[in-house]
Parts: sequence; structure tokens; C-alpha cells
Amino acid sequence: MADVFAKCRLPEYQPVKDLGIYPYYHAVEERAGDGEVVVGGRVLVQAGSNDYLGLSGDPRVKEAAVAATRRLGTGSGGSRLTNGSLALHEELEARLAAFLRRPAVMVTSAGYLANLALGALLGPGDVVLGDRLVHACLIDAVRLGGARLRRYRHNDLEHLERLLGACDPDAGRMIVTEGMFSTSGSVCDLPGIAKLARAYGARVVLDSAHDVGLLGTAGRGAAEAHGLEEAVDVQTVTFSKALGTIGGAVAGPEEIILYLRHHARSMVFTAALSPACAAAALAALEIVAAEPERRRRLRAAARRLSGELAGLGYAVTPSDRPVVAVPVGEDLRCFRLWRELFDEGVFTTAMISPGVPPGQALIRVSLTATHTDAQIDRIASAFAAAGRRLGLLPSTPERTPPRAEDAG
Amino acid sequence: MADVFAKCRLPEYQPVKDLGIYPYYHAVEERAGDGEVVVGGRVLVQAGSNDYLGLSGDPRVKEAAVAATRRLGTGSGGSRLTNGSLALHEELEARLAAFLRRPAVMVTSAGYLANLALGALLGPGDVVLGDRLVHACLIDAVRLGGARLRRYRHNDLEHLERLLGACDPDAGRMIVTEGMFSTSGSVCDLPGIAKLARAYGARVVLDSAHDVGLLGTAGRGAAEAHGLEEAVDVQTVTFSKALGTIGGAVAGPEEIILYLRHHARSMVFTAALSPACAAAALAALEIVAAEPERRRRLRAAARRLSGELAGLGYAVTPSDRPVVAVPVGEDLRCFRLWRELFDEGVFTTAMISPGVPPGQALIRVSLTATHTDAQIDRIASAFAAAGRRLGLLPSTPERTPPRAEDAG
Repeated sequence: MADVFAKCRLPEYQPVKDLGIYPYYHAVEERAGDGEVVVGGRVLVQAGSNDYLGLSGDPRVKEAAVAATRRLGTGSGGSRLTNGSLALHEELEARLAAFLRRPAVMVTSAGYLANLALGALLGPGDVVLGDRLVHACLIDAVRLGGARLRRYRHNDLEHLERLLGACDPDAGRMIVTEGMFSTSGSVCDLPGIAKLARAYGARVVLDSAHDVGLLGTAGRGAAEAHGLEEAVDVQTVTFSKALGTIGGAVAGPEEIILYLRHHARSMVFTAALSPACAAAALAALEIVAAEPERRRRLRAAARRLSGELAGLGYAVTPSDRPVVAVPVGEDLRCFRLWRELFDEGVFTTAMISPGVPPGQALIRVSLTATHTDAQIDRIASAFAAAGRRLGLLPSTPERTPPRAEDAG
Repeated sequence: MADVFAKCRLPEYQPVKDLGIYPYYHAVEERAGDGEVVVGGRVLVQAGSNDYLGLSGDPRVKEAAVAATRRLGTGSGGSRLTNGSLALHEELEARLAAFLRRPAVMVTSAGYLANLALGALLGPGDVVLGDRLVHACLIDAVRLGGARLRRYRHNDLEHLERLLGACDPDAGRMIVTEGMFSTSGSVCDLPGIAKLARAYGARVVLDSAHDVGLLGTAGRGAAEAHGLEEAVDVQTVTFSKALGTIGGAVAGPEEIILYLRHHARSMVFTAALSPACAAAALAALEIVAAEPERRRRLRAAARRLSGELAGLGYAVTPSDRPVVAVPVGEDLRCFRLWRELFDEGVFTTAMISPGVPPGQALIRVSLTATHTDAQIDRIASAFAAAGRRLGLLPSTPERTPPRAEDAG
């Protein structure tokens, strides 16, 4: 008889651990001020957080969480459906609906659970057309919904159109994309997607996990930036990026949200979001709306770092996106570079398959609005030193890295 | 062309709302002291919470959450895998491992996500044998894992044995059960399951969501109560019941937990548990270990209520389980009873299909260690008045409901 656990006995990361270059599960002991953390007793620049606006440490956000905890407790004791709903959840839903300019919003206990809820909208007769780089939880939603998944090459609309054209005429169609993609920092081609959706009768679902709070003048995300909010049928967001806490939400038409409230298993069968996180998200949302200068500062920080890395010779295109992906290629080289950067005092993210396509490993650097220019320059200096030691860059600098203009 | 959203346009709950008996999403405005909440401006006895030990409002748990929020912020900015791990998460994992007497523990951001992680242990060649009443997230884990699901009638070991016997000899087998079942309050037949697992080479996964903190002398759950902890290969827990907050964990052998840390999508692709919830769970765990009198008080409360309801004529078997299921039958009758109880000042849960089998709707009452005898008697009085008004009980009481002995 086969053991169902037999497949779990591979010590697959042991060789990497033996080499001292294992890049995962390094625990933060303390915050050491904005943009810095203590890991293994050393102060590092935190260059891998998705806390893009720096709100998880904002005193106003923290004190909102503190007050809600004291008033309402540390949990709500049940599912939103039954006895776990709080007026605070409803207040957050109303505020999100007003902010996102969507008729209705449903708050979930994690961003993963918000996207998973989309599975309830799907059935075996449906086809989901998803960008090759969409997040794992969107794929899991399709699996749980029992729909057919067709993936198109990243932002390749000719490929998307071919797949749409090949759909069964009776199939319901849903195009799923992220607004700003989490691993690459690239932004979806929403104008092209909207046009194809109209032509082929498909619904558009936009995962704004990484773009709400960042893109668009008001921070409503990629759809606002493109002036195409009406082309998006359903928008999902997470609170663990720009909103500085944890939780998620689905925003869309009244009847869709009402349906999800009763049919989405990740909503109905999960304990409600904690009062602390709901209050933190609400406070963060006010700051997102009131302080657009945070978005400007973040863009300036991104221009500075991407310019410096490009100047060093890394295959980075200068841009104002807070995610800077540094291509490395093979996994082992990626882990070595991650370790060199770590030793230089910079805590980045090593991304390998299945997070990115096999053989296209990369170091992901993410910036926040609270990173100082000095911290950004420390990140670039670490990349310079590490890249030379590993032979990724010429061993002596040919020129001083240029400094990007700071438009913040 | 079919609209993928067409299926979401049924206003299925509208008739129930028009009748004023819609029992879902009623929001709690405030806590009104232990065991009571404010809903719609009225103070109600909270008789539907899973906060079994009353810890979500405990000052020690709340202040632990407050301190962690001030020290570490409202979120950790990323996945545990990459940059979101905190030493606090590791401390909680170590404490849980010691408490549960398991070699290793992985903490997730929700109980739903802990069970969903089990999908990573499964593949198309595996068969999962699940009790008919196991929670939705265990079913979703099997779907995501691509294994075959065979469900046996609730606690029916002859049925389980037939299904085990019918498995492909090469299939990996996993038996999945809850310790204490959430809708019925019944406890799994672990001795029988353990025997069958040995005989048929199956692994045993125990979902202790509703029994950790409650069952067993030390509060380790149903396996401790049965003296059969070694027969359980993997135990999952949630923090949203006895631990008074939100989050979850998988506990088991080192190699299984290590495998899940790298392969469970609900772990790798979700933001880490908030500092507030991690600290709250840690503080709650100390209280669970230090104050067994809470478990005793809860059992006494359950005996009191179940005795009173049985005395009134409801089809309830007196027991010391904190979940008291009152069978009602048809959905509409269940909603009416729920509403009558609500009007009488008692906030219960109406459970219909798919939460329970069709036609077997029930009112679920759950008790906490902080409910007073007076509150319990108010619950019973509400059931008396409501039951008479709806003709579920004789219109005049034949006798005074007996009071159960309070052994607390």
C-alpha cells in the first residue's frame, strides 16, 4: 500500500542550506525604524516588503488597530455569515466601495481568500483566460470553481485573442489579470483587454493587490490610471500591500457581491477579519486618499533605484514602479546573489519557479514610500559589491552609478 | 455568447428578507460585556460565537495584541516564505508544538488556509476518506490537491471500512475527520478510525478546530481525550475558536511541515499572520494551559443548557459539549425560529444546507466559558417562548424546565 506522505520526504532545500545560501523564512526580530529590520541581530534595509506606502508602521494605523482591539476584542468568534459580522466590517466595506467607486464590496480575511471567492462565480461551462503571471490564488479559484483555465503569455493580447476565439460559443468567459504584476512590476494592458472583452463578450476581473493605493491619481489602481474603470467588472484588492495590514476585498456590482456573500466558500466558511486588521485598513484608506505625496515619493524612490541598478549594468529598465526585478537566471546563482546582498545588509526576495518561469530566477526588490535616499543608495551599493564578487558585473566599476533625478 | 455572471443574478434570499426572517450578516455593533453583544441597538445574549473560552475579550489577550501592534506594526508586508516571517511567528510555532506535543508546527493566516495547505500533500493517485460532516475547507483542500474524495456517513466506521476496502491498492489513503464536529457537537470515533487506519495503511488527519482548548485534560483536543495522539499523523487547529483570535496551524512530523512550508500554496502565496493575531494566539495558549477551570465551566454551562432544552421538549440530548444543535427540519421553519429567538434577545445561528444535509436545518447554539447561568437561562426561556409561539412545543408549559446540576 502506498503512503500518501511518501512524496513529502525529499529534503529538497538541504543542499542549499548546507551552502549557507537558503533565502527563505528568515525571521524579522524587530523593526529598526522605517525601511529597516533586525534579522539575526543585524540591522538590514528591508528591500522585500510589499508595505509600499509604509503604512504598517504608521502611528495612526497602529493606534486605530489598538483602539479596535480594546473595544471589540482580538477576534469576532465566527463567520461573517452567521455571528462574526461587525459594524466595523460594514463600515470598511462602505468606505472601500466609495473609494473604489464600485457599487458593493465584500471584505474577506485575507487577499488570498478574496481571490479564491471568485471560484463561486465559475462553473464547468466557463473558461477563464488568465495572464501567465497572475497570482497563484487566482489559479486556485479557477480550480475550485471547476472552470477551464487558458493562460495567455504575459500581456500578449494576440495570444489572448486567439484563445478567446477558440472558446466554445456557449462558454462563459472571464479574463483575469493583475493590475501591476507582483513579480515583474509591469502593468497590464487594460485598454487592449477591455477591447477584446467587449468584442468577445467576456467579463474582466482585475486583481489590484499591487496597484491599489499606488497607481492612478487617487490611488484606485491600474484601471484608474488607464481611465478604464468601467471596463472592469470585478476588482479585487488586498490589505497586505499598500494598506499595511492583512485582509482582502472583492468589489463589483451589487448582485455579484450579494451572490458571493452566500456562495463563496472562502467567505462563508472562514472566521471574520479581526477588528485590529479591519480598523487598520480603514485608517490606511484615509491616508491613501489624503496623502498622494506618498505615491509620488514612492515613484521617485523607484526611479532612483532602477536608474542606479541599470547604471551598474544590471538588466533593469529604469521606471517608477516600486517593484524592481533583477534577472539572474539559474536558481543557484539567484540564491548566491540573495546571500551576498543579505551579507551586505540588504534583505531582498529570491524568486524562483513556480513564482516565475523556470530558469528565469530573479531578485525582487520592492520599495516603500518611507525608504530614504540613503537606504536606496545602500541597496544599490550592495548590488554593486555583490554583483562584482559573483562576476555578474565587471570587477571594477567603470563609472560611478548615475543618480536618478528625485522628483518627489 | 453566455455571460459568466448570469448564474449570480438570483435574488434567492429576497423572499426570506421580505418576511423579515433573514438570519445572516447581522452586524455586532459593540460588545456589551462577556456573553452579550449589541445588534441593531439591542443587547442580545451572544449564543452563536465560537469563542468557546471567552478569550477574545480577555484583557491579557487584548493587551498582548496591543503590545505586538505597537512594536511590530499592523502587518508584516509579505509572505512568511520571503520577507514576512517574524520571530513572533516562530515563537508561536514553537509554543504550539510544545503544547500539542507535535514535532513541528506551521502557522497560517487563517484556519481555512491551514486546512487548505493539506492539498499540497495530495496528488491524483490519492484517495481521501472524509467524514460526511467535515468542514468545507477540507473538501476544498482535496479538490485543490487533485485527489479523489470518498465521503463516509458521519462517524459510520462500517461505511469507512467499505470505502477503504474499495480503494485501488496503489492509492495513497488519508482519513480526514474533525475532532469535535462544528455543527453537531459530536466527537469523532477516533479509536475506530485509528484501528482502520492501521489495518488499511491510511494516514489520519484530525481537524481540531473545535476541540483544541476544550477536550482532553490539558486541552490538546479529541486525540488527547481519546488517549490516541500517536494515531494522528497531522493535526490542524484554528485560532478563531478557543484561542479567541484568527489564524491557523498545521502540526505534524518535521518532514511534512517542512514540505508544506515550501509547497502549500495557501502558505507560500499569502501574507503572514498579523503581529496582533500572532501575539493574541500566544497569550491565549498560555491561558488555555494555565486555566483548566475554563473548560470545566464550559462543560457545566453546556450541561445546563442542553438539559433545559431537552426538558422543554426539544430533540436535544443532554451533554457537556458547547455546541448544542436544535433540530428544526425545514429551512423556513428554521429561519422563523431564529427570528423569534432574536426578538427574544438571543443571537443564535440558523444552519441550512449545505452546512447541514438538506431538510435537516437546525439552530446551532454555542456556549462560552464566560456565559453566566442567568444568560443560559435566558437562552432557554427564549427557546421556550419561541417554540410555543411557533407550535414546536405545547402552548402551555407542562412543567417547569428542570435545571441541570452545575458541576462547574
